[in-house]
Amino acid sequence: MDEEQPHYGLIGQMIAQPGQRAALAAILTEDTDAMPGNFAYLVGEDSANPDALWIVELWADKDAHAASLQSPSVQAAIAKGRPLIAGFGARAEFVPVAKARP
Amino acid sequence: MDEEQPHYGLIGQMIAQPGQRAALAAILTEDTDAMPGNFAYLVGEDSANPDALWIVELWADKDAHAASLQSPSVQAAIAKGRPLIAGFGARAEFVPVAKARP
Repeated sequence: MDEEQPHYGLIGQMIAQPGQRAALAAILTEDTDAMPGNFAYLVGEDSANPDALWIVELWADKDAHAASLQSPSVQAAIAKGRPLIAGFGARAEFVPVAKARP
Repeated sequence: MDEEQPHYGLIGQMIAQPGQRAALAAILTEDTDAMPGNFAYLVGEDSANPDALWIVELWADKDAHAASLQSPSVQAAIAKGRPLIAGFGARAEFVPVAKARP
């Protein structure tokens, strides 16, 4: 992949406090500062677990992701979302190797 | 989400036979027939397991995904890839609730 492609990906499952999944998803996707190096940030509701969210992220590289965690808007979202989080499930880092679109 | 957004997502971990991950990833992302209702098809190499791939898919709905599995090119890819697959790991269906881009 060239420089304009993501080289770092994250998949994570987040478990919300009972009944708080939609509220947590809303916080995770609120408007944020510009995120240099972010290619995609997807939030989905797990179809099997009514409290679980999946988050898939694509970044230019691992440093770009780490830097984003320091931004004021992300820090604010973390502070706001933390009380709604019961725990974390599966988590994986990956290297995007291909992205096909029809 | 409106009609032009995906309503069905899949996350799956696939375990390749030892040493066959790159070959399997190549098969999974070969040119295929047009895939009606497909919004994204991402393949990534797990950073922790040298034999594991992650596949993230976004579809208009579950029926669009099911229909894709019947297409000749997907059937051919399944037949070609099957000998390279050792097993499957995590798998989840989800409903995309938000997709933010910077």
